[in-house]
Amino acid sequence: MSTTETTLSTGADLAAIRERKPLVHQITNYVVMNETANATLALGALPVMAHAREEVEEMASLASALVLNIGTLSPPWVEAMLAAGRAANAAGVPVVLDPVGAGATSYRTQTARRLLTEIDVAVLRGNAAEIATLAGREAEIRGVESIGASDSAAELARAAAQELGTVVAVTGALDHVSDGEQTLVVENGNPLLATITGSGCMSTAVTGCFLAVRSDAPLAAAAEALVAFGVAGEDAAREAKGPGSFHVALYDALYALDPATLDERARVA
Amino acid sequence: MSTTETTLSTGADLAAIRERKPLVHQITNYVVMNETANATLALGALPVMAHAREEVEEMASLASALVLNIGTLSPPWVEAMLAAGRAANAAGVPVVLDPVGAGATSYRTQTARRLLTEIDVAVLRGNAAEIATLAGREAEIRGVESIGASDSAAELARAAAQELGTVVAVTGALDHVSDGEQTLVVENGNPLLATITGSGCMSTAVTGCFLAVRSDAPLAAAAEALVAFGVAGEDAAREAKGPGSFHVALYDALYALDPATLDERARVA
Amino acid sequence: MSTTETTLSTGADLAAIRERKPLVHQITNYVVMNETANATLALGALPVMAHAREEVEEMASLASALVLNIGTLSPPWVEAMLAAGRAANAAGVPVVLDPVGAGATSYRTQTARRLLTEIDVAVLRGNAAEIATLAGREAEIRGVESIGASDSAAELARAAAQELGTVVAVTGALDHVSDGEQTLVVENGNPLLATITGSGCMSTAVTGCFLAVRSDAPLAAAAEALVAFGVAGEDAAREAKGPGSFHVALYDALYALDPATLDERARVA
Repeated sequence: MSTTETTLSTGADLAAIRERKPLVHQITNYVVMNETANATLALGALPVMAHAREEVEEMASLASALVLNIGTLSPPWVEAMLAAGRAANAAGVPVVLDPVGAGATSYRTQTARRLLTEIDVAVLRGNAAEIATLAGREAEIRGVESIGASDSAAELARAAAQELGTVVAVTGALDHVSDGEQTLVVENGNPLLATITGSGCMSTAVTGCFLAVRSDAPLAAAAEALVAFGVAGEDAAREAKGPGSFHVALYDALYALDPATLDERARVA
Repeated sequence: MSTTETTLSTGADLAAIRERKPLVHQITNYVVMNETANATLALGALPVMAHAREEVEEMASLASALVLNIGTLSPPWVEAMLAAGRAANAAGVPVVLDPVGAGATSYRTQTARRLLTEIDVAVLRGNAAEIATLAGREAEIRGVESIGASDSAAELARAAAQELGTVVAVTGALDHVSDGEQTLVVENGNPLLATITGSGCMSTAVTGCFLAVRSDAPLAAAAEALVAFGVAGEDAAREAKGPGSFHVALYDALYALDPATLDERARVA
Repeated sequence: MSTTETTLSTGADLAAIRERKPLVHQITNYVVMNETANATLALGALPVMAHAREEVEEMASLASALVLNIGTLSPPWVEAMLAAGRAANAAGVPVVLDPVGAGATSYRTQTARRLLTEIDVAVLRGNAAEIATLAGREAEIRGVESIGASDSAAELARAAAQELGTVVAVTGALDHVSDGEQTLVVENGNPLLATITGSGCMSTAVTGCFLAVRSDAPLAAAAEALVAFGVAGEDAAREAKGPGSFHVALYDALYALDPATLDERARVA
C-alpha cells in the first residue's frame, strides 16, 4: 500500500490484456462458470476452469491470475481453493477472492475467513453485506444478495482493507475500492447488471484479468476492472429490452470495448 | 386438500413476489443452474444455490421455498437434498420436487421415490413419463424426455396426486395440475419451450417462487406458476427466430410480466 | 478403416437425426453442459447428462452415442467416464472423446491417455495442441487454448489416427479429420466460434449426434458434424454483433439447418 496517488490506465491495461492473452485460472461456482469464462474471453484473456486437487497447483502456477469464488462451495472445492491459492502465492500469481454469500451461512463465512487467513489475497471483491460480515461489521444478507450494511460503502471498503490487509472492492450501485489509505469510487455501470445472476462474479473474473497485467498495483487493477465492466454494462443497456437481452449484449460490449476511449469514459472519483 | 374450488390470483401473487423478494433455495442440476437462477431473478424473487451438507439445513431454513431437482444427481447431492428437505419441513418452508429422468434409470426412480417418502413435498412437477413412473403407471422415457404414458395427463395428475399425497403438475403441450380432487388445465405456453433444455426445470423454479408467497395453497401456486411461465413463453415466442433467441427473450418476458393483465391472459380450465 | 473413398451425406444424416431423435449421453464439463445440451437439442437429438457411478452404465447402454469430455475432470468423474465407456463399448454404442486441456497439466494428459487406452473411442476431437500431446508430438497449450503444434494439422490428424487407432478430428481455423488413411479438410466455420467458450465442446457433442446415426462410418460422421456445425457458425455470424449475439444465433442456426442445402454448402476437400 502506497501513499502516492494511484493513476488508472484502463485503456492501456485492456490493450495489454488483449495483446498478452493472460491465462486466468478460475475455481468458481457452478452457476456462473460459463458466464465468467465467456466474460474473460470477450475481454481478451484466456479462462481455464480446473478444480481437481490433482491439478490445481500445476494450473495455478501456470496462470497469470487466480480467481477464487465460493458461490457453490463444498469441502473438496475449498481444499482445492486453498491448494491453488498457496501455489499461486508461491509462484507470485495474484489472487482475487469473491466471498459469495459470506454472512448467509456460517459455512460461507468461515470458509471466506479461512481463505483470507491462509492465502495472500490481492483483491477481495464482494457486495456490502459480504464485506461487512468479513470485516466484523453488522450486515444483512438474503441468500447471496446484500440487503444492507451498517456502514457507508466507502467507509466499509476502507475499514475492511485496513483490517484484512488487502485491496477491497465493495460493489453496488456505486463501486468503492480501497487499499485502506486511498479509496476510489467507480460510478460506471447500469442497474440492469443487478437483474442477472453472476454479474458480480463476472466483475471478479474481470478483476482477475486486469490483475494479470497489473499485479504490481492491485488497487488500480481492481478499479480499472470495475470501470471496464461498468462501461460494458452501460453499452449493453442501450441494446437491452430486459435481463436476457442485456446479458447477451454484455458479452458483445466487453468484446467491443475500445481501449482508446476507455479512460475518457471512466467515471472515477 | 380441500373440496372448495381453488381461485387463482396470479397477478396479485406475482406482485407479492416482486414486493417481498422471497429467497428460493435451489438444489438443482448442473445443466440448468444459471437458467433457473436467472428465471427466478427475472420473475422478481432471489435465488440461492447451495448444496454442501455443511450449509443446506441452515440455508433451507432461511428460505421461503426449497426447490429440489435430480437432473444430475449423485450420492452427496441426494444426501444434501434429504437434509435440506427435512430442515425445510421442520421450518415450515414449502418444497417442490422435480424428478428429472425418473423412469430412465433405476437410480433416478429410486431417488425420486426416496425423496417423496422422506420429505413432505408440497408440489411434484414433471413430465408425463416421470410422473407415471412415480405413480406406478406404464411410461416411456428417453433420457429425460417423455415419449409417452398410458394414461391421459389429466387422469395421471389426479391419480398421482391421490397416490402420492401431494399436488402434482404434469407439464407438456398442456399442463395438468391436481391435488387429487380438483384438476386444473393450464393452456398457456408455446412449443418453443420444448426446444430449449431446462424449460421444465425453470417452471419448477417458478413454482418455488409462487409457493414462497402462497404456501397455504400449493394447487393454486403450482397452477399460477405455469400460467405466468406460459404467458412469458407466449411473449418470448413473438420475438424468437429459434431456440437461442427464444431463450433470451424468455428472461425479458419473465421480467416484463404485468401483474395487471396476468389474470385475464390466464387460460385455465 | 477402409481404403474406399468416404462419401459424406450430411443432409441425409441430419434428417435421420431429426427423425430418430437419438439419445446422446454426455459426461462433460460444468462450463458447457447447458451449451452442449442446447446444441444437441437444437440439432434435433436428445441430450442427457448423467455422471453418477450409480447410473452411468445403465444410461450409456440406453444411448445411441456417448460423449466424454474432460474439461473439468476430477477422480469420481473420470471413474464414471471409464465405467460409461466400457458399458457403451459392450452395448455397441459409439464413443467420442474430447481431451480438453490435454498437455496443460499432467492430470489431464494422463486421464486422456487412460480413456484412450481403456475405452474403444470412435472419434477423438480436439485442438492441435491437445491432439499433438496425445500423439506424442511437440505442442504448446495455454490452459485449454492451443497456442501451437509442431506438425501441420493435416499431418497431425493422420499421424494421430494411425498411432491411436481411432478417427481423429483436429479443429481450428480449418478442421482436419482422418482415419489414418484418408484425411478430409472441412473449411466451413467462422472466426467468431473462437470467441465463445465451449464451441469445441459443442462440436464434440454434435459429433456424437452424427455418430448416433452413422456409427458404421466414424470418419464420415466426424466430418459431417464439422460441416453442419461450421455451416451453422456461418449463418450465426451474419446475425452477430459480437460473441454474445453470435452465441445466441448459433442455436437458432443449428435449429434452422436445412438438410436439403447442407451438402451443397459443405466445403470439404
